[in-house]
Amino acid sequence: MHTVSVNPHVLRMEYAVRGPIPQRAAEMQAQGRSTIPCNIGNPQALGQQPISYYRQVLSLVEDPMRLERERATGSVPADVLDEATAILERARTGAGAYTESAGFRFVREAVARFIDARDQAEPGSARAADPDAIFLTDGASGGAAYVLEALIRGPEDGILIPIPQYPLYSATIARCGGTQVSYYPDEDRGWTVSRDAILEPLEAAERAGVQVKAIVVINPGNPTGAILDETSMQQVVELAREHGLAIIADEVYQENTYGHDWVSFASILGDARDVPLLSLHSVSKGFYGECGHRGGYLELRNPARVEGTDLSFTDVILKQASVNLCPNTVGQILTYLMVSGPREATGTRRIYEQERQQVLDDLHAKATLIRSFFSEMSGVECFGRIGAMYLFPRLGPLPAGTGDFEYCMRLLEETGLCTVNGAGFGQRQGTHHLRIAFLPPRQLIQEVMPRWVEFHNRYVGA
Amino acid sequence: MHTVSVNPHVLRMEYAVRGPIPQRAAEMQAQGRSTIPCNIGNPQALGQQPISYYRQVLSLVEDPMRLERERATGSVPADVLDEATAILERARTGAGAYTESAGFRFVREAVARFIDARDQAEPGSARAADPDAIFLTDGASGGAAYVLEALIRGPEDGILIPIPQYPLYSATIARCGGTQVSYYPDEDRGWTVSRDAILEPLEAAERAGVQVKAIVVINPGNPTGAILDETSMQQVVELAREHGLAIIADEVYQENTYGHDWVSFASILGDARDVPLLSLHSVSKGFYGECGHRGGYLELRNPARVEGTDLSFTDVILKQASVNLCPNTVGQILTYLMVSGPREATGTRRIYEQERQQVLDDLHAKATLIRSFFSEMSGVECFGRIGAMYLFPRLGPLPAGTGDFEYCMRLLEETGLCTVNGAGFGQRQGTHHLRIAFLPPRQLIQEVMPRWVEFHNRYVGA
Repeated sequence: MHTVSVNPHVLRMEYAVRGPIPQRAAEMQAQGRSTIPCNIGNPQALGQQPISYYRQVLSLVEDPMRLERERATGSVPADVLDEATAILERARTGAGAYTESAGFRFVREAVARFIDARDQAEPGSARAADPDAIFLTDGASGGAAYVLEALIRGPEDGILIPIPQYPLYSATIARCGGTQVSYYPDEDRGWTVSRDAILEPLEAAERAGVQVKAIVVINPGNPTGAILDETSMQQVVELAREHGLAIIADEVYQENTYGHDWVSFASILGDARDVPLLSLHSVSKGFYGECGHRGGYLELRNPARVEGTDLSFTDVILKQASVNLCPNTVGQILTYLMVSGPREATGTRRIYEQERQQVLDDLHAKATLIRSFFSEMSGVECFGRIGAMYLFPRLGPLPAGTGDFEYCMRLLEETGLCTVNGAGFGQRQGTHHLRIAFLPPRQLIQEVMPRWVEFHNRYVGA
Repeated sequence: MHTVSVNPHVLRMEYAVRGPIPQRAAEMQAQGRSTIPCNIGNPQALGQQPISYYRQVLSLVEDPMRLERERATGSVPADVLDEATAILERARTGAGAYTESAGFRFVREAVARFIDARDQAEPGSARAADPDAIFLTDGASGGAAYVLEALIRGPEDGILIPIPQYPLYSATIARCGGTQVSYYPDEDRGWTVSRDAILEPLEAAERAGVQVKAIVVINPGNPTGAILDETSMQQVVELAREHGLAIIADEVYQENTYGHDWVSFASILGDARDVPLLSLHSVSKGFYGECGHRGGYLELRNPARVEGTDLSFTDVILKQASVNLCPNTVGQILTYLMVSGPREATGTRRIYEQERQQVLDDLHAKATLIRSFFSEMSGVECFGRIGAMYLFPRLGPLPAGTGDFEYCMRLLEETGLCTVNGAGFGQRQGTHHLRIAFLPPRQLIQEVMPRWVEFHNRYVGA
């Protein structure tokens, strides 16, 4: 048989969210056993209904011939028809043509307006978002990949990432051949970040000859689910300023805050011009959960000048986007709908608000419900203000010679619950965790949690 | 201002299809001047209508609530409703959830059936396609990137690409830091490929210590538009066998053959097991032209074993697909529709066949029309059996000290015709070309071509 050498950086990539535990779950399902896929933040796979308004509009955008017909039938609300008509007027070439590489301009303008309204930035002011520095992407992953591919030349370039972290970052740094520089948020203090927690690994990397170029912050956290406090965010900005780092702010869970305060890094930066910020958002999470549509955006602020050229970092990202031609148009239009929503004071708006609130209330209730069972599990603790779609409990001591991988595999076999073990995201040496997405229907959670409690206490010998 | 060092491989990427000429066209448009975008194969941007059936089904998939309602209204044909229902039964989680990393299994099975039917391979035979070796992708670009990222470790690894070529390949090889090994199809013989044309650069690269790992073939060609003959394809297979190369077959224009014979590389390989083949297809071209939906697939055949591991090359691609979570679901479903089409002997099928034939006839007529004007242009010649969506005329001698870039810029300014100059794709030293996508409405072609003829003869001083 033919053999081939393969890029070792690609081979080194690890992606536990799609790793051996979910693979085992797939095998079990193929054998007719029922499993509960809590390994991934994929709400619609667990029965969450899409926001009706989004789909009504997308359905019309795909088949514009319907617009006139539906005016006559009256089966689609007039405000939805109006919105779809307005979109198709601006997206002149429809869903079937390549757009500009950065995405439809009207969508990027709407994203800029959304960011400004969210952050209370006066449009046109120094703090306002710039549509020309916004790139629509196929989910947030695409934007993160552009940034890391551009920043990393080789092992001499380092990227600070929190541990635990979403493995997109470690995998992409590995693929690009860069150096992962790990910093450890303080679990017992709700996953907050102290100055020293970043400074120590940063200086150690610098001493080792690594040029640290950026710091990744995921807020609300993934896998921790924890919402970061403003003091931590201020520390990150200060250190970024002092050490010439860009901030890569993964803010895809910004709607999943369940009544807690949340602020964007753009807002923390305010008028400051001296810290480059790259922030990511996506249609996959929030109350929309439109993972399959692969929509999102990357916003650049204070882009650096590229050494040895007359280019800005924005130009480099545009170059990368050009090679990919354009992000998918349906994801682009869904991003538009995400950042704009139906017009105020319409019937469609009322339904949208109801659906929105119901999804968020339900997610919050499910998180609280799961977390309430942790107190019955010997040695289990869970920290942080609940955000995102995940809980990341610390499991306490496990039987000698075993780790959280064995625990999660056993949990899967005995209860059908498919989670991802802490080691898949990284964790402090000697600790054990798992990440569970709080997405299954409440009824199912009620059923499975007592079985998990029973399993846990038996497994750890409590 | 902050400065940053950037990966020189990313900086080195060039992508003329979205380069200075189209950028100048965008400026002209912003000034209210009309331009004709023939720089890119983007049919729906030039008024080509989507295939109704595709959009009717996608529209229902986006808004499944309509299924029942439309049964009652009768405004959507029953066979379309049946197909959308059947798709949603198989795509159980709908358009809004992440799918398997490789894409919906039922779509990959349909792709395998399509390949087998196309290549007259008995399903279940050694020649049959394997759904587990098919990856759905966001357009063909994503699949090409996976393969090149995996194959290329650094400058020690070479990839043979035809010159001229679609700059996705040169750009991605540059980004991965690999060595581009250029081979030159014979323009005057209709862009056919001789054994020596490949062997010479291949051996030269090997002598220079480069391990050549794969050969890219684009058939029908881009930018040449030429359909490759079977003899050339046999040569490629033989050389691949002798030198242990994988074949990367970009076959996205396989429907754009306008009555000429076309065979796939899978079909040329037949039962052979000793040459790895990676073939690409896409919803962007053909008679569908659904560029914006970013759908496509990568099929692997005879995957190599990965040195030093127990993995096959398919496992490596799966790893990469996992990090990206999944291709967009709408593009996946469109890929399904592309490879299956409406059921035979239905009204929908009849309309589909009519639309299909009309698009292809129209494209062919437009290509022939444009080409007929070349004979009036002093020194211009155009070779090859017309395929794809492009003509790539050789311009003959240009004014001293100028190249095809200046020609195309001037052509744009004087006629509004936006093309891409030959240097953007690579070309034999001392020759000048341009690529024109034969997509504008016929009326517009009739109007602009005499102006191009006039421009050309004046410009070259004929």
